[in-house]
Amino acid sequence: MIETIDNTKEFKTWSGDMQTRIEDVLNAHLPDTKISPMRLHEAMRYSTLGGGKRVRALLAYATGEFCGAEQEKIDTPAAAVEMIHAYSLVHDDLPCMDDDDLRRGKPTTHKQYGDAMALLVGDALQSLAFQIISQDKLIKNATQKLQMLHILALASGSRGMAGGQAIDIESIGIPLTRAELEHMHIQKTGALIRASALLGAYSTDHLEQDKIEAIDHFAKSIGLAFQVVDDILDSEADTQTLGKTAGKDQLNNKSTYVTILGLSAAKQLASELHANAMAALSFYGQEADLLRYLANFITHRSS
Amino acid sequence: MIETIDNTKEFKTWSGDMQTRIEDVLNAHLPDTKISPMRLHEAMRYSTLGGGKRVRALLAYATGEFCGAEQEKIDTPAAAVEMIHAYSLVHDDLPCMDDDDLRRGKPTTHKQYGDAMALLVGDALQSLAFQIISQDKLIKNATQKLQMLHILALASGSRGMAGGQAIDIESIGIPLTRAELEHMHIQKTGALIRASALLGAYSTDHLEQDKIEAIDHFAKSIGLAFQVVDDILDSEADTQTLGKTAGKDQLNNKSTYVTILGLSAAKQLASELHANAMAALSFYGQEADLLRYLANFITHRSS
Repeated sequence: MIETIDNTKEFKTWSGDMQTRIEDVLNAHLPDTKISPMRLHEAMRYSTLGGGKRVRALLAYATGEFCGAEQEKIDTPAAAVEMIHAYSLVHDDLPCMDDDDLRRGKPTTHKQYGDAMALLVGDALQSLAFQIISQDKLIKNATQKLQMLHILALASGSRGMAGGQAIDIESIGIPLTRAELEHMHIQKTGALIRASALLGAYSTDHLEQDKIEAIDHFAKSIGLAFQVVDDILDSEADTQTLGKTAGKDQLNNKSTYVTILGLSAAKQLASELHANAMAALSFYGQEADLLRYLANFITHRSS
Repeated sequence: MIETIDNTKEFKTWSGDMQTRIEDVLNAHLPDTKISPMRLHEAMRYSTLGGGKRVRALLAYATGEFCGAEQEKIDTPAAAVEMIHAYSLVHDDLPCMDDDDLRRGKPTTHKQYGDAMALLVGDALQSLAFQIISQDKLIKNATQKLQMLHILALASGSRGMAGGQAIDIESIGIPLTRAELEHMHIQKTGALIRASALLGAYSTDHLEQDKIEAIDHFAKSIGLAFQVVDDILDSEADTQTLGKTAGKDQLNNKSTYVTILGLSAAKQLASELHANAMAALSFYGQEADLLRYLANFITHRSS
């Protein structure tokens, strides 16, 4: 375990290590392409492996570390949240949703494998996320594992990620208030980010309620910050930097923090949310440094 | 609990009671339409409530009863398998899949709510199935509940239902051998039917390994019988009787038991599978009668 991380260079090393680690874990959990149905398994791997910032996995590893969990125990929950995230991207990119051609710098799953296969890739990735937690051998406490599954299911469903997407598609062309936009994002991206943080925390053998509560506060702020920064990047960055089509929100006539608040106030909001996340950790010393650096990374990222 | 069911009339009463019961259970588990996102919740209810034979729930109640579980304990697992089934129908009916307009005698979900909402309905129903088992208060044994979640996840995923559908879409226009067709159906419909039977069995406080094995054999045969009869009905019945578009398989140039074996041999196969299912119960007396009647119902149904 990392004792302390006192500068950005060390955080970069840690996050690079964790990105490599989660790639290996996902690779091990995803069905082999030699197993039938081979094309589905190939498409599931195409959609999940080889990229992304892995913010959700990083968050799970960071909160797990904060709570004293061994990395091996965080592996499966971290992979599960990345699978849920990957499935949501595949479905979100479909022609009936955002109709996007590019994701993580390569053709979207439906562009590569067809719409029907992309639909099934998402469906099967969702099942697999629940499967790998339910069968995990490292977390011995069955009640704790059930709690993890419950957190993940709630965060994915109609009151979480899928619900946020429903609000999103319903609101195309309809200007949202800031409160409505926030409500949408708390569900659409916030819920799974919060779940990632909690699943990391629940990977330990010794739950500490005060830490769980600090993590929950931290994750709520950082989840929203993530989305505000996403909106800023969508309005500012180019497609090559993002690895996905830039300017889509404006093109799709969607309300964003930038369209509602303006660019300058959106940046101010991101800073405030970052400060709130930091405040949630104020009772903790260097054992929370990974979380602090992660908050910086989320707020100051360029893609 | 029902002591014995000695004729078809009593089975009809029991299955009618259970169909009413599962409708109530699903109704209680599905989010209220007054809760945001309201249109998604309305569409989830539209897709899940008000119909269907509820074969999977009946099977869960029958195996649960056979294993001595109280009906209350079977409610949630039975609802979970019906939610997974409902989600699969919604996604299967989408334009990029079977492109069907009619289901259970009414417009399919995407015809009623649009493609994007139908996609999200399926996604959210899948999450909800795992959620309701994970939070169920009646089954006290956490390890048993984890086993249920594992069975359900495996049955839904790439080696189960979603995998079978992937083989199905890949094989359009390509004639399958009987072995390939069987492999597809074991995943596409067989896996969830088997899971329904096992989840009912796991609802008891006192697992009996011999009964679990008998149920597993029974469910494998009856799962395949279900599909063979489905193919026969698709080729013979009219749209009104089926409540969904008849003759779709032929129209879509899909291999079925009828196209591969011919109608007469397909009927013979259904009888053999029915006999196999009965043989799996041969060590049991009237405590297995519900399962026997259910096997009759599945094999001799007209829609």
